[in-house]
Amino acid sequence: MFNSIRKSLLATTGFAAMGLALSATGSSAETLDEVLARRGLTQKDLLAAAKTYTPTGKRDEFIVFSSGGQSGQIIVYGVPSMRILKYVSVFTPEPWQGYGFDEESKKVLDQGKIDGREIQWGDTHHPALSETNGEPDGEFVFINDKSAPRIGVISLHDFETQQIVVNPIMQSEHGGAFVTPNSDYIIEAAQYPGVLGRGFAPLSEFNEKFRGAVTYWKFNREKGRIEPENSFSIELPPYTQDLSDAGKLVSDGWSFTNSFCAERYVGGIESGRPPFEAGCSQNDTDYLHIINWKKAEEVFKAGKFTKINDHPVITMQTAIDEGLVYLVAEPKSPHGVDVSPDGKYIVVGGKLDTQASVYSFEKIKAAVDSKKFVGKDSYGLPIIAMEDALHKQVPLGLGPLHNQFDSKPCVVYTSLYVDSQVAKWDYCEGKVLDKISVHYNIGHLVAMEGESVKPAGKYLIALNKLAIDRFNPVGPLHPQNHQLIDISGDKMELVYDMPVPLGEPHYAAAISADKLKPLVRYAYGTDSRTGEKHPDAVRPGSEKIVREPGKVKVFMTAIRSHFTPEIVEVEEGDEVEFVVTNSERAEDETHGFSISTYNVNLSLEPGKTATAKIKADKPGVFSYYCTEFCSALHLEMTGFLVVKPKGYQDAGAGAAAGQAYTKADYDKQFKTCVDTQAVIDSVVAYIVSTDFKAYPDVVALVEDATDQLKFAEEAKVKAEEAAKKEDWQNATLWAGQWWQYQVKAADIGLRAKNLLDEKGAKPK
Amino acid sequence: MFNSIRKSLLATTGFAAMGLALSATGSSAETLDEVLARRGLTQKDLLAAAKTYTPTGKRDEFIVFSSGGQSGQIIVYGVPSMRILKYVSVFTPEPWQGYGFDEESKKVLDQGKIDGREIQWGDTHHPALSETNGEPDGEFVFINDKSAPRIGVISLHDFETQQIVVNPIMQSEHGGAFVTPNSDYIIEAAQYPGVLGRGFAPLSEFNEKFRGAVTYWKFNREKGRIEPENSFSIELPPYTQDLSDAGKLVSDGWSFTNSFCAERYVGGIESGRPPFEAGCSQNDTDYLHIINWKKAEEVFKAGKFTKINDHPVITMQTAIDEGLVYLVAEPKSPHGVDVSPDGKYIVVGGKLDTQASVYSFEKIKAAVDSKKFVGKDSYGLPIIAMEDALHKQVPLGLGPLHNQFDSKPCVVYTSLYVDSQVAKWDYCEGKVLDKISVHYNIGHLVAMEGESVKPAGKYLIALNKLAIDRFNPVGPLHPQNHQLIDISGDKMELVYDMPVPLGEPHYAAAISADKLKPLVRYAYGTDSRTGEKHPDAVRPGSEKIVREPGKVKVFMTAIRSHFTPEIVEVEEGDEVEFVVTNSERAEDETHGFSISTYNVNLSLEPGKTATAKIKADKPGVFSYYCTEFCSALHLEMTGFLVVKPKGYQDAGAGAAAGQAYTKADYDKQFKTCVDTQAVIDSVVAYIVSTDFKAYPDVVALVEDATDQLKFAEEAKVKAEEAAKKEDWQNATLWAGQWWQYQVKAADIGLRAKNLLDEKGAKPK
Repeated sequence: MFNSIRKSLLATTGFAAMGLALSATGSSAETLDEVLARRGLTQKDLLAAAKTYTPTGKRDEFIVFSSGGQSGQIIVYGVPSMRILKYVSVFTPEPWQGYGFDEESKKVLDQGKIDGREIQWGDTHHPALSETNGEPDGEFVFINDKSAPRIGVISLHDFETQQIVVNPIMQSEHGGAFVTPNSDYIIEAAQYPGVLGRGFAPLSEFNEKFRGAVTYWKFNREKGRIEPENSFSIELPPYTQDLSDAGKLVSDGWSFTNSFCAERYVGGIESGRPPFEAGCSQNDTDYLHIINWKKAEEVFKAGKFTKINDHPVITMQTAIDEGLVYLVAEPKSPHGVDVSPDGKYIVVGGKLDTQASVYSFEKIKAAVDSKKFVGKDSYGLPIIAMEDALHKQVPLGLGPLHNQFDSKPCVVYTSLYVDSQVAKWDYCEGKVLDKISVHYNIGHLVAMEGESVKPAGKYLIALNKLAIDRFNPVGPLHPQNHQLIDISGDKMELVYDMPVPLGEPHYAAAISADKLKPLVRYAYGTDSRTGEKHPDAVRPGSEKIVREPGKVKVFMTAIRSHFTPEIVEVEEGDEVEFVVTNSERAEDETHGFSISTYNVNLSLEPGKTATAKIKADKPGVFSYYCTEFCSALHLEMTGFLVVKPKGYQDAGAGAAAGQAYTKADYDKQFKTCVDTQAVIDSVVAYIVSTDFKAYPDVVALVEDATDQLKFAEEAKVKAEEAAKKEDWQNATLWAGQWWQYQVKAADIGLRAKNLLDEKGAKPK
Repeated sequence: MFNSIRKSLLATTGFAAMGLALSATGSSAETLDEVLARRGLTQKDLLAAAKTYTPTGKRDEFIVFSSGGQSGQIIVYGVPSMRILKYVSVFTPEPWQGYGFDEESKKVLDQGKIDGREIQWGDTHHPALSETNGEPDGEFVFINDKSAPRIGVISLHDFETQQIVVNPIMQSEHGGAFVTPNSDYIIEAAQYPGVLGRGFAPLSEFNEKFRGAVTYWKFNREKGRIEPENSFSIELPPYTQDLSDAGKLVSDGWSFTNSFCAERYVGGIESGRPPFEAGCSQNDTDYLHIINWKKAEEVFKAGKFTKINDHPVITMQTAIDEGLVYLVAEPKSPHGVDVSPDGKYIVVGGKLDTQASVYSFEKIKAAVDSKKFVGKDSYGLPIIAMEDALHKQVPLGLGPLHNQFDSKPCVVYTSLYVDSQVAKWDYCEGKVLDKISVHYNIGHLVAMEGESVKPAGKYLIALNKLAIDRFNPVGPLHPQNHQLIDISGDKMELVYDMPVPLGEPHYAAAISADKLKPLVRYAYGTDSRTGEKHPDAVRPGSEKIVREPGKVKVFMTAIRSHFTPEIVEVEEGDEVEFVVTNSERAEDETHGFSISTYNVNLSLEPGKTATAKIKADKPGVFSYYCTEFCSALHLEMTGFLVVKPKGYQDAGAGAAAGQAYTKADYDKQFKTCVDTQAVIDSVVAYIVSTDFKAYPDVVALVEDATDQLKFAEEAKVKAEEAAKKEDWQNATLWAGQWWQYQVKAADIGLRAKNLLDEKGAKPK
């Protein structure tokens, strides 16, 4: 065995040279021209490939957080490679992440119950990155649920969902999540009107009893949590509020929420009435709501509100009296409402129109200040004349939908839903600069940091709703298509098609990759959902099983490649909790934990503590095991949950032995270990002969290997103690365990060595 | 409005020319060399980019079906682009697909209950494609669940899970799914030993009472279902069975299942015993099980079995008596057991060894036929001497794990877990041909059709377990890394790194893309989970609401952009079923259906019928709406579920009207429609002037547009009827609906026109 390992190690070390030699004589390697000809690629394709292809180990420049639509998740991908890096579960349980399967995350999901109902999905629409001074800061991302009006808070320190808040008054929502420039508030606007507080009223009283609303959720950045007690809402007319955006710089303190179906139409096609789609799109205009949230905050703090479901709501009458809400006409069924980087303009796309409307905040402010209104709506809200608020209207094409900004002044990109195009245009001068076709019906689009005060001016992504013929067919439910567009030149250039394999994204937010600084491991024993030390975390050596009538609690640790304890005996009917702490420090050394035939799976990243709770309702012997391929002995990382039938009396027999070991076995194993140590020593000698300390990744590996060798030493001591007692069974097996730790150390050492070679490490 | 649309249509038509002009004068477009320099790409990187980059609309050559590990899903991606096309949910509910949220799919998930427990996840390991004569045929994919011993059956006609079968006797499993060469049987081998039938026995009786097993599930291809009544198992010793493979060609009728922990060790580190990992890896060899399944099938059909949980099990004694099972030693803790394309060799990687072992089926058969055994194991199973079965043992490196075959005779690729390498070697001669480093710890690997009788010899993918530093960091839980390797030349070349954003893949199967022929739409009114006509599907015009005490059933249709009915009134406490049929025929025109604050979401692809069932337990007015962005008026595709408080008496007031329309409104809308029709006519004229019939995608769009225009005509009739009665309210709104259908037709027409331009259609 040892000789083979040594040979292999030597072969590995000598391999680079051999590889090179083979390469020189390789006969069938294709040239670039041959590849282009074989694959039918043009020079333009090759240029696009060069702009997006990201070789092994190289990083992306931007990271996109896309809604996962009705998957209830957030999709994270890199630009320009367009490789999806992670699906983060927010409203939907997901077992790989243990989300909704461990007790800690169940508490987060339980926050999202409405009227006692468990909701195991969400219709996520609009993610918003936390901002500092109007720029994304990489600390948090927020996302809404349209179907059940909720907001999720995800920490970008670990990419885990930390909080779900239920809107206490809305029936559904769409205009969230949007943040104020320092993320003091998260804006959530209603969608379909309802009785505030989710009460009942007949549809015949729609105009009188149904309402819209907008909620301003107070965010406590220090705690990383929304504070419902410091949040408030404003009652709005039943106009089916849609998207929102917060003002910035000159317009900071204001927010904008558009609407459709200002007709307040109630369909009923089954009774011969025209359907909602006809009645809700009849008028040429709907209403943009202009809200002074800074002033509303003062009104809230002054206590001028009523409470609905214990939540403070500023009534429309108070909003009118205090001058908080104004209306202005906006083109038919608009979708995007987007404030320019300088805060001076608000660009609105009319989805059933052919033009985009640019409103001037200065003009709006002047109308408000001089109380120049063209009238009031049925609820008494003041209406500003469109011509008093408009800067320009610009014909772009069919179905302008959403807008994102360039780094160049006055340049904006607008998606055209019906035309399946993106228009690049000048919103100051009202001039179209360029157009590009996409495949197909584009909904939202995202430019890199394109809604911040400092757009990056690099890359634009078309979030197309249909893929149809773009990709290999995978059945009647197609992936969506995110198309990457290079916007660095005068002309937009389509450079990549990315299928979305799960969920139907609506909106996305993008951030410069260097602003993200996530953890690689948790502080030992962290409850990742609270960010606090888990009260039940234990250190190796302190594991225990605590029993009380009907309950068993197991305080467990996990390390390559065993759990402690390995055998847990309980009685039929017991409620059993396994609180497991991953005691690894090595990056990416995640362990899982599942119990056969039970509905539990934990994802235990290094340092994390999480709990699997089950009812041992049936006698039997259930295997628990690690669900992450963590090491060469991953399959052996297992244990037995023994559920004894009620009243069962153990015969008291010892553990079974399938195999007996002798002194010869021990001696053989001992020799293998000694020889292996020599190999490890040679790898260590190689590593320390280099400037490895210059490479933090390698340093981390070396620390991990050192840990493993410490464990190896401990196992060696146990083996020698057993051997002293001539207990060859345990002596042999502990010597085997010693060797297992050596193998783990060798594995890590080899990885460190490969990394040094790859990085071109030099002798010290 | 009309003038704007016409202008836009004209602009669209004329745009190609304008774009060209702009492109010629564009000043800042980067050259290829500039891009390479800016992004730090080498010529080798560029070659790799050219080998993998797949421009918009171009298809991939192969499709990979990868296990999603503990996500409970299957991941589908294209090769060489390495773009993920779909996550197919198998064991885990997933709302985007409606899986576990509609009543039809809940029935599939309910098949997977064990001991009455709902299991909302699965630990998927090994997908297997259905085969015809040993080649993947693109009809089905099967996958196992390790944690709860189950097999999922997925139809590749629609990429939906159709069936879950629970293994009636195992406690956990790992050695599934593997198929016989015509998919007559799906092989599922146990993992951790248990009392067969999931009963109880103390661990002290491990050797006597605990067992392994292998199940042969009979697959009925016609029905697309496993037939449990025609399936059987064979009892095996408690050796912790691992992977399996079916023989092929000369070895057809046989199957091979390896094992680890043949030591039958029971750990107990908490009691001072060495852990499982030590005791299970002490011996130098474990046992490969060689099974004559064809003969076992005869034994089963002859009724020579006992029944456990009503499932036929051939006992070990019968297996011994009938000559069904043989053992041969295999290197320590093996993982892959892979039969060569010609069926003559079985290659086994010893995960804790440095060499791969090649067994000769001919030698095994000779030993069996001549009854040349070296002895029996503790249970009486005959053991073939290793030297009587081995063809060669070949030193490859540290941790040989899994093998995939090349199209060239005798060439195999083996993953080396500890070395983080792939070895290419000759299993006939026992010679290493090439090695390549991957990042990092590689588990399984997959070559294109690399386990079939005719491997494609193109592309290999390393399924690496750790990604660590390969991608932008996304928190402590990293994506895994699938690395694409070009194997067309003598030297393996790494060409792409693909992060896996959700789940931890173990095994994957690959198929030539042209073998997949999925549906684009369902036959009208299909229950996709049974493949049958849904008994409650209705045609447009036949929608209805059926009431009985405490129950309301709504037979609904969905089409761009409304549901019928739009208002559903029920009473508090009613159980309400919405059976919704998507009446679209257009490709990719999926609708969704959710009810605000309820735990339901449907994914309704064209032709599909699915059911959302809720308990209307609280009075209120709940919006239901389409969750897929299906059309410009998607947000308006909504309705109200009115849940009246118990005993509530309606005042009988009519529907609310938020807006009144006059004759002038009607005349204006009518004129818009007439003008719009002229524009549509011009688009139609353009399309029919080309050879559009040569393009099936365009023909489908034209059919869809024709449908929309038929609906438009119907709405026009209603508008004119109302106008005759001087009912300007309904006249205006039906005229509005007429226009909505026109807009949909125009949308489709434009898409058809763009497609014709892209495809270079010629005048007729």
